[in-house]
Parts: sequence; structure tokens; C-alpha cells
Amino acid sequence: MLSRADCERMDASDPLASARANFVVPAERIYLNGNSLGLQPQAAAAAVQRGMNAWAQEAVGAWNSAGWIALAEKIAGLLAPLLGADPDELVVGDSTSINLYKLLHAALAYTSQERVLLIEQGNFPTDSYVAQGLQRPMRSVPAEQLLDAIDTRVGVVLLSHVHYRTGARQDMAAINARAAEVGAVVVWDLAHSAGAVPLDLHAAGTQYAVGCGYKFLNGGPGAPAYAYVARSRQARLQSPIQGWFGHVRPFAFDEEYQPAAGVQRLQVGTPPILSLCALQAALEDWSQVRLSKVWEKRQRLFELGVALCEQLRSAHSAVGDLRLLTPQDAERQGSQISLQMPMAGPVNRALQAMGVIGDFRAPDVLRFGLTPLYTRYVDVWDAFNVLHSVLRERRWDHPDFLQQPRVT
Amino acid sequence: MLSRADCERMDASDPLASARANFVVPAERIYLNGNSLGLQPQAAAAAVQRGMNAWAQEAVGAWNSAGWIALAEKIAGLLAPLLGADPDELVVGDSTSINLYKLLHAALAYTSQERVLLIEQGNFPTDSYVAQGLQRPMRSVPAEQLLDAIDTRVGVVLLSHVHYRTGARQDMAAINARAAEVGAVVVWDLAHSAGAVPLDLHAAGTQYAVGCGYKFLNGGPGAPAYAYVARSRQARLQSPIQGWFGHVRPFAFDEEYQPAAGVQRLQVGTPPILSLCALQAALEDWSQVRLSKVWEKRQRLFELGVALCEQLRSAHSAVGDLRLLTPQDAERQGSQISLQMPMAGPVNRALQAMGVIGDFRAPDVLRFGLTPLYTRYVDVWDAFNVLHSVLRERRWDHPDFLQQPRVT
Repeated sequence: MLSRADCERMDASDPLASARANFVVPAERIYLNGNSLGLQPQAAAAAVQRGMNAWAQEAVGAWNSAGWIALAEKIAGLLAPLLGADPDELVVGDSTSINLYKLLHAALAYTSQERVLLIEQGNFPTDSYVAQGLQRPMRSVPAEQLLDAIDTRVGVVLLSHVHYRTGARQDMAAINARAAEVGAVVVWDLAHSAGAVPLDLHAAGTQYAVGCGYKFLNGGPGAPAYAYVARSRQARLQSPIQGWFGHVRPFAFDEEYQPAAGVQRLQVGTPPILSLCALQAALEDWSQVRLSKVWEKRQRLFELGVALCEQLRSAHSAVGDLRLLTPQDAERQGSQISLQMPMAGPVNRALQAMGVIGDFRAPDVLRFGLTPLYTRYVDVWDAFNVLHSVLRERRWDHPDFLQQPRVT
Repeated sequence: MLSRADCERMDASDPLASARANFVVPAERIYLNGNSLGLQPQAAAAAVQRGMNAWAQEAVGAWNSAGWIALAEKIAGLLAPLLGADPDELVVGDSTSINLYKLLHAALAYTSQERVLLIEQGNFPTDSYVAQGLQRPMRSVPAEQLLDAIDTRVGVVLLSHVHYRTGARQDMAAINARAAEVGAVVVWDLAHSAGAVPLDLHAAGTQYAVGCGYKFLNGGPGAPAYAYVARSRQARLQSPIQGWFGHVRPFAFDEEYQPAAGVQRLQVGTPPILSLCALQAALEDWSQVRLSKVWEKRQRLFELGVALCEQLRSAHSAVGDLRLLTPQDAERQGSQISLQMPMAGPVNRALQAMGVIGDFRAPDVLRFGLTPLYTRYVDVWDAFNVLHSVLRERRWDHPDFLQQPRVT
């Protein structure tokens, strides 16, 4: 049996332990929801304040004097190492959904009309919705059939690298390779991957990807998202949304649209600077971290969670179908533990009321996000311990539950 | 001859004079560029700080506890009176360019392929670029030929209500009526109208419009934009970008996209909350102002500018082609004075170096934005006085100029 003291020892020897002090950790809470909204980096307040000061003191002049005009590009440079990409393959701005629209549109433009858009059944809703809006023949298959379903009838594959609900990670290189064999391309959604697991988009042969700034990257609520396009795809890259920030000379006020070089043409309008300031601070923090340490700790946190889950299962055989949904193979994991149980919804509300902030995905999944920069081993222990008492005392029958958060 | 003392008297009796104290006015500058980036409302700092605090203390819980989930809709409610629209005809989020894309796409979807998209020559670049990206037959005509060009060959008209360069205002009702006669619709860009001139989208029969949060509305750099769709157009409204925030039940995680009621279906992804916080503060300030006073002051500021421009012209007949580009008819004006002169670029740099912040639009236009909430009559007088000395002393030959801001 693992004890809390064991976890305290693991924290004491954790090389990333000091990173937690770089975050504002909500008081009296065990926060296991960084897969939904990352905690606030301590540096974010000063960064946003600098943005506010520049607006106050320089007004329009701050576009140059405070470097706002180059801010998105600067952030792309900070993001690149987390993805195994080059800065000039990344563009930062807009939402994940909008970037997904741009890339799917661009990828489909070079695909014959008969070849289908293949998606995974039960992908994150916005991915499916964006795909459905593109008026192309579509096919959706369960995750486990995906690799086999990529044949010459498929033009574009849209896929989450790590699944938001199960936490299962796809084999990016294998799927890219299979797609390449049949002349298809894959558009990857990295929302639950970047900052969660090691990524090497180059080595994996990835052509297109999008991702989110506010989950594992800690960029703040609704932080701008990003899009990646491999250099080899950039020459013919066409954005459906031709905005002035994607023009080769945005401030020449030319009448005719001429796309900027490479991936910059995916920029559209004026970016939300205050939100970008927070994202920049978050990524500057990331650039100070040795990434291998993060991935190692992710795996150890995960192993701890799996062990605690096993202890829970043996203690609560009465709850029946408590099941670890996330794969146990480290290479197939993201950075969340997904527990499947019949009463997951009420159990999650009971956990919230007791200060354990995971979340619930209908109909029966409880998610605990693991964020090595600020999750301690004792946090995982405490969370499972509270879950243990919730199950033992059937606390979900208690009327006094906090309302659950509604946003991933 | 108008004197500075005359302007001081006008300020002393200005019913809006106290509104200036609600803004952070850059020190030792005469700021006439609120048509590009509005000054920071004093309330914005606290609003953004509240957003940061909610993120720090509540993390993901703030989506409910701090009301983030309803923030965009709340802002739409604050914006509606400025446009003469109902809150449920407005959606706040994304950039102006992206909203324009959504509305042009939606409007064109119900237009036969042969009918052209009509735009004004020399419209704001992003408007033309977005239009060019839609792969529809297009026609562009000079502003003065626009009304006549709307015939049965036209399906959709895209038009700025107030032109960014000349400051000329279109007759919205007349153009809408003409379009209705031939079965066309107009998509209006209100970027230089909202907060600048009185708007009554209902009375004018407007069907579609987009606009910008960071100019006259003072929402901060890159503030989220908005889209308006008349209620009669909402039932068949289809967004090309189907995101989860535009779903009828975003948090039900349904597999199939079902659009939200009305204009809400134009929402796409998670909105940038910190930037929305600043925009909310700016619009709360607007809701405290009697709008008729703003429009009256706009007209008086404009008349002052025109008179000072005349004085300048007679004093500097040597500069040759100094010309007031903005119409003198108050109904045809926006809220900027556009001066055309051969040396406008260098003259603007000289003005900047002397603390007068207007801006330059190639090849030969100098813009002075008038923002009644914080522009004083003496500011207009001082700006023209500095311009007078720049022209008299040919100060644009001086090497010591600040670099000009590059963003509208």
C-alpha cells in the first residue's frame, strides 16, 4: 500500500518541485484540471500589467514601442521547442476551432472531391463540428479502427493526438506514415498534447496541426491558439480567410491580396494583445524548464495514479465498474487519468465540494489532469484519498455540492 | 480668427468635459488617433485585474463563478444601444476580419453564383482581401458610383460605413434600400462608425454588419470584434466555421453540430477572456454616456477642425494642395478629419515628434481622429497650431523624427 509519506518523499526528491512556486495555486484546492485551464503563472500578472501600461502610456505607439506587432511571432518562437517544430512553421492567434477550419480547408483544397474526410468517432466536439461544416464527404470510425480505415478513399484525416475524454494518445508517426502511403494528409489537434507529452512534429512527419494555448500551456482563459504547417506544405498553402495580417505587406494597404511568406499567411486580423501577453509569460516559463524532466515526472505521476486507482478498485469492489480508461502503456498516454464509473457526475460534484478539482465528461468519465509543473505527488494521493472517502460515504447523495465547471 | 481662448471657452461649457477623466491620457501628447486605437478607460485596469484574480483564485471554476461563460453575451448587451440593434442580433468575439468572412460567406450562400460581390475601390484592405478569398465574381467601383452600381447583377455589397482613409460616411439607409430593390444585401463594416457617429441599424434596414472593438469603442489593443445579423436573417443563418461555442448545447458534447439559436451560432471557439474584460469595461463606460451629447460634440469638434483647416490653408497657400478630404456635410462625416497634402508622410512624422499623434495613410493623407469622450477643443486647436509650425518651419526636413505607428 502506498502511503502519503511515500508521496511526500517523492515530492522531496522531485527535480521539478520548485517550478510549482512559479504558479498561483488556488488556496485549499487540489487542482487536477490543468488539462482544461492551466493555472496562472506568477509572471502573467506583470506581463499583462506591462501590456496595460503600454496601452495607457503609448496608446497606438505601443504597436512598435512595446513590440505588439511582433508579439505573435515571438510567442511562436517560444512555442516551437515544445512541439519539435521550427518557429517559421507556427502561427499564433485566433481560436483552436478557427485554426482547425483554416487548416482543414487548406488541406482539402488539394484533395480530390471524392476522397473523404476521415475523423475519429467521439472526437472533441468542436473538431467534429468544424469538419461537418466543410461540406465534404465524411467518414467517422472508432479510434481502434482508425489506422486500418486510412486507404486511398481517404483524403484528409482529422485526429486528436491525445483524446480529451479517454486520455489515450495516438501513434502520430504511424498514422502519418500510413496516410502518406495512400496520398492522404493528417491534421492533428494537439490541444491535449502540447505541454503534456513530448512532441516531435518533424520526426513524426506531421504536415498540419493546431493546438490550444490555455490548457497545459497555461496561457490563460481563452488564450490564443496556434497552427503548424510543415515547411514543405507552405508554398501552396492557401488560407480561406484572407486577412490583412496575413498579407505580405500588411501596412502597405495594397488593394490586392498577396499572401505573406509561409505560415504567416494564416494570420487574419489584429490579435488580442492582452491575452497574448499572458500567453507569452506562460511560454517564457516553459522555456526555462528542462522538458525531459517534465515528461519523466508526467510518467511517474501517472504510475502513482494508476497504483492508487488499483488500491481504490480493491477497496470499492462494491462500486462495480470503476475502470481506468486511459491506456497503461506510457507511450499511449496523455497527461490525464480518466476514470470510468457509473456515478462519475455526482461523484465529481462531491469531489469539487471537497476541494478536489478534476472534471466530468458525460456520461461516465471523471478526469484528473496531471500537470508536472505544479502537480505534486501528494496532490494525486490526496485526490484519490478524497475520492476514496466520497465512494465510501456515498457523499454524492449529499445535496450541498458546488456546481461543476462547464468548460474544458 | 479662432483663438485658443475660444477653444478653452468651448471646453469650459462642454457637457462631456468630465468624461475625459475616465481615460488614461498619455502625458505630453495630443492624442488624435482614437480612430486607430482608443485610449484606455480608467476602469479597464480594474476589470482586467478582476479577470486575472478570477483565473488565479478560481481557475477553471471562474467560467461560472466569474461569469466568463456569459461575458461575450453581456458585452453584446452593452454594445447594442450604440448600434441601434437588439442584444440578440449581436455576437461579440473573434476579429473583424473573421466576422466579415463569416457574414460574407453566409450572405453569399443565399445568392446565385452569377450575382457579383460588389465592393468599393480603396476599401480598407482586410475587407477587400477577405472578399477576394471567397472565390466569387467581384466588381469594385469608386464610392461615388456605388449606388448606381447596385443592380440585379449584384448579389452582395460589402461596404465600410465610414471610410478609413477619407472619413466619408455612406448613406446606409439609401444603400440598403437600393440593394433591397434589386434583391441584394449589404454587409456593412462599422469599424469607423460605432462610437463615432449615431447608428440605427434597425431604422436603416441593415441586414448584416461587423465592427471593431478597439477604435472608438476603446476596448484595448486587438479587442474582440462583433457581428450583427438582423433577426429576419437569423433563421437561415449558416456559419462557415461551426465551432462548439456556436452549438445549441456547447457542453453536452453532442457528436452532431446543431446551431445555437440566432446569431449565437456565429460564435466559434473559446473567447480570449482577458481581452474581453477590457472591452467590457470600455462599453460599461459608454453605457453611462448620453449618446446625443457625443454626436453633438463630434459635430462641433469637426466644425472647429474645418475652420482651423481653412485658417491653415490661407496661411500656407505655399504648401499648395492642402485639401480637406472629409465631406463638410455633417451627415456624410465620420469622426476623423482627413487632410490631403503632398508631404503628409514626413509631416506626420514631424507632428509625432512634437507630440501630436494623428496618423498617415499612404500616399498623402493625414488623419486626425476626433473622440468626443476625451478629445478637447483645445486639443484640436493645438494640433492644428503644431501643424501650422511644422509647415511654416518645414520641420519634416528634420532628421529626428519618431518612427510612425504602423497599425490602424
